Amino acid sequence: MNHQTATLERPSDGEVEHDETAALIASDKVEGTSVYNEGGEKLGQIENFMVGKRSGRVEYAVLSFGGVLGLGKNHYPIPWDRLDYSVRLRGYVVDIDKDRLKDAPSYESERPPQFGADYAVGVRSFYGVPY
Amino acid sequence: MNHQTATLERPSDGEVEHDETAALIASDKVEGTSVYNEGGEKLGQIENFMVGKRSGRVEYAVLSFGGVLGLGKNHYPIPWDRLDYSVRLRGYVVDIDKDRLKDAPSYESERPPQFGADYAVGVRSFYGVPY
Repeated sequence: MNHQTATLERPSDGEVEHDETAALIASDKVEGTSVYNEGGEKLGQIENFMVGKRSGRVEYAVLSFGGVLGLGKNHYPIPWDRLDYSVRLRGYVVDIDKDRLKDAPSYESERPPQFGADYAVGVRSFYGVPY
Repeated sequence: MNHQTATLERPSDGEVEHDETAALIASDKVEGTSVYNEGGEKLGQIENFMVGKRSGRVEYAVLSFGGVLGLGKNHYPIPWDRLDYSVRLRGYVVDIDKDRLKDAPSYESERPPQFGADYAVGVRSFYGVPY
């Protein structure tokens, strides 16, 4: 994940540091953040993200959006490495168009997968992210 | 983080798998989970946790509790590796007593630190976790 987050804090000398980048981000700040494709089209928002219990590594963030009648497979796990932060859009950008997204690993809110190592490998494979 | 989480799902053969361990945990499941010391004394709960934007690694979870009059330095970052999950307590256990915790890195809710790499190193150092 590539957060080019410009903090909005104003240093004491009065100069705005547009390119200042904090190294860490809070989990609850990621949740609820909007997600766009490279065309600036909004895809949905980050519902939550999955962390390896032992490794402490974020495997993927879950993009969610209202499906048809609020039903359907509207949860899409996306590898952390494939999410870039856009200061302009104030949200994450993932390089995938909506048509391609239809074939991506996804699940219904009511039917989450087992989230095992195999599932994580499948997600990485779809998005071309090496393990 | 060592989650010995027994899932409560019942496999199709009817046998309950008490020791089944899912590899991943959802971010919003970690948030709000109680934290105990090794004596079973409740210290507080996980408020959120901090993730390296580029690395995708969880640096530490933030233990919070109501301070005196709800004020004071009541936010304690604890390295992910130092949190173990107790199925019995249904919460995380960290091997530190309350007296020792007083000397741990901490901050007020209203005055969060910069959360840079230096801060993360300080936290790891206090808890004896190698980088």
